[in-house]
Amino acid sequence: MDLKANQQRVMKELERLAEFSDAPAPAVTRVVFSQADLEARRFVKAECTAAGLAVREDAVGNTFARWAGAEPELPAVGTGSHIDAIPHSGRYDGTVGVLGGLEAVRVLQETGFRPRRSIELVMFTSEEPTRFGIGCLGSRLLSGSLDASAGERLKDSDGRSLNEVRQGAGFDGSLADVRLPRGHYHAFMELHIEQGLLLERKQIPIGVVTAIAAPASLRITIEGEGGHAGAVLMSDRRDAFLGACEIALALEAAAKATGAIDTVATTGVCQVFPGAVNSIPSRVQLAVDVRDINEARRDHVLGSLARACERVAAVRGLKMEREVLNADAPAVCDAMAVEALTAACAEQGAGFDKMVSRAYHDSLFVSRIAPAAMLFIPCRAGVSHRPDEYASPEAIARGVGVLAAALRRLAG
Amino acid sequence: MDLKANQQRVMKELERLAEFSDAPAPAVTRVVFSQADLEARRFVKAECTAAGLAVREDAVGNTFARWAGAEPELPAVGTGSHIDAIPHSGRYDGTVGVLGGLEAVRVLQETGFRPRRSIELVMFTSEEPTRFGIGCLGSRLLSGSLDASAGERLKDSDGRSLNEVRQGAGFDGSLADVRLPRGHYHAFMELHIEQGLLLERKQIPIGVVTAIAAPASLRITIEGEGGHAGAVLMSDRRDAFLGACEIALALEAAAKATGAIDTVATTGVCQVFPGAVNSIPSRVQLAVDVRDINEARRDHVLGSLARACERVAAVRGLKMEREVLNADAPAVCDAMAVEALTAACAEQGAGFDKMVSRAYHDSLFVSRIAPAAMLFIPCRAGVSHRPDEYASPEAIARGVGVLAAALRRLAG
Repeated sequence: MDLKANQQRVMKELERLAEFSDAPAPAVTRVVFSQADLEARRFVKAECTAAGLAVREDAVGNTFARWAGAEPELPAVGTGSHIDAIPHSGRYDGTVGVLGGLEAVRVLQETGFRPRRSIELVMFTSEEPTRFGIGCLGSRLLSGSLDASAGERLKDSDGRSLNEVRQGAGFDGSLADVRLPRGHYHAFMELHIEQGLLLERKQIPIGVVTAIAAPASLRITIEGEGGHAGAVLMSDRRDAFLGACEIALALEAAAKATGAIDTVATTGVCQVFPGAVNSIPSRVQLAVDVRDINEARRDHVLGSLARACERVAAVRGLKMEREVLNADAPAVCDAMAVEALTAACAEQGAGFDKMVSRAYHDSLFVSRIAPAAMLFIPCRAGVSHRPDEYASPEAIARGVGVLAAALRRLAG
Repeated sequence: MDLKANQQRVMKELERLAEFSDAPAPAVTRVVFSQADLEARRFVKAECTAAGLAVREDAVGNTFARWAGAEPELPAVGTGSHIDAIPHSGRYDGTVGVLGGLEAVRVLQETGFRPRRSIELVMFTSEEPTRFGIGCLGSRLLSGSLDASAGERLKDSDGRSLNEVRQGAGFDGSLADVRLPRGHYHAFMELHIEQGLLLERKQIPIGVVTAIAAPASLRITIEGEGGHAGAVLMSDRRDAFLGACEIALALEAAAKATGAIDTVATTGVCQVFPGAVNSIPSRVQLAVDVRDINEARRDHVLGSLARACERVAAVRGLKMEREVLNADAPAVCDAMAVEALTAACAEQGAGFDKMVSRAYHDSLFVSRIAPAAMLFIPCRAGVSHRPDEYASPEAIARGVGVLAAALRRLAG
């Protein structure tokens, strides 16, 4: 295969995809079902069609581009990722797995390979939780990890329901039909940037993922008492923001206290109401995210958080409500899929390390219905979810080459 | 005077004024130069005109309604307050001093009183700092406490300049012409709700204000490093929000540590960037407010805040910038104006207590160019800047009666 041409083609497509954004370059903002997202989807679908793939979309917008195998009735080999991007993020998260997956298909086509099993490229809807507060929306529905009825109850922060928003974007039909049967895929492999430092530090080109961390996210609502910032004595206050500060610091301490590097906890959202310089905060909404590859350890952190909420609420006279948005189990990757990836690395002369994914991905949910694994490529300084997120053309081409070889092994 | 009729008239006007709002009742949101603010101004001006007052507006929208005295060349006696309201606040803050001042004028007119000095009712522009980040915008410019050139550099959070916004609202002319000379007012008195608990607790109907606390407000910008909430190890993080939490808690501790009940400090604004559940906060902007009637004690708290910022920045590897938005000196009220108010209380049979104002008011700035004082009436539970802010019709009528008697003494 011509590595140079393959590099240029996929880099050009990644560049083009980054232009569908609601933030000025180099930042990317592409929230699910926004105009930018819908235009980006059209671009990717057109590229798939141009490569001779048959495109199908389901009721939540998951998009499937199929290269029919010689025995199309056999379970297909899947690959793919997502193209939605959180506000003010970068251009490689997810997109490398979609456009890199497409590139892998084209590379195989160009070598004259004829797959026995169909190869199916998937673009999952809303891997990011930005709009509906829950990550991996498409792969959760597809794998039955989220009921159609629970999906229908989701609302965005403007109060618009998932049904209203998806139908407005042209995705009709019943959410119940999104679910795929176990056995639909013979295997599934997702190419992704590492979003961490390990591969770059060790100068290893490929990470073969053997386990995916278990994420949990919560919304915490803190109610205190507002009032005039000048007039209410310090001793008379029930300031919701100061309570929120103690909660966020307690969460950090709890995550560090496990002593395991795989435990991470983040308070990424803090909305203060009414939010005026001369007004005591009466209400605060936090969103927190806790992850670990060890579910018991993660739940221990959640327990510490709950106790901190109770303690702070009592001391400061606040009311606190914790709502678990999701708390998923970790996944162990499939041995056959991992083996296909390590063999592909050997074939391609690419060094690899087995590793865990602390970030979660659509593969976490696909693994509920199919043998799944992931391959990581290095990204600069481990940076992700930021405008300066970067993976080199060489690293991407290397990942594409390994993915193509693994697809050939599994579909051949 | 007919207390019952006067109660009904002013309460009806307060009710009508509360309808000009960008929040659903009972909340009031009336940000300066919004459509709601402009419509509310039109309503008040029409009521002034109906009372036979001559209305004038200056280049920043300060509005003057004058009842000409028999000797109109003499310095006038002023009264007034503001009608702008922070988001989701109540209907009495400021408005009682504007519509109550108008009612005092009408009460005097109805008794057949003919003033020797003119009596001028003032509606100040933007006492609240909501839009331009600085409180008492109109009275600062009017008193020369804010230079016209500094005023012209002000921008709102959408990046629109004060000049652009005020001209769009129909207020042309040069900001330099807003300033009034010392000697314009013989005396100035502002009627206001207490926004504190003391009058209600002691069951005293009138507070005669002898000093106004010195406010300082700062904007603190904290820069850390963003990244993926799953992938970046806790030990590798430079989380801007966790730094902000420590700053806010340190500020609270510093205010409590003075041991004086008149020291108050508030972090009322916290904006987290990018603000996604799965993204480590890279940047946070806080707005803090510190007040005291003792300037040295307030500055001591600001010093503690500065040291906390340096300490937290060093420990967490963050960059912090502190910008002082305003740091004003406290005011001691004028002895003649205070004497007129206490004599008016005695005349009206209204018990009073001398007190300090921990909240700041337009009178703080008017006091730079005129003998000024304030009178407070109780408000329920000391609540202000909230939808449930409340002052009883009887309390308001009592305040109007005392204000009218004091105006008669000073203008007679």
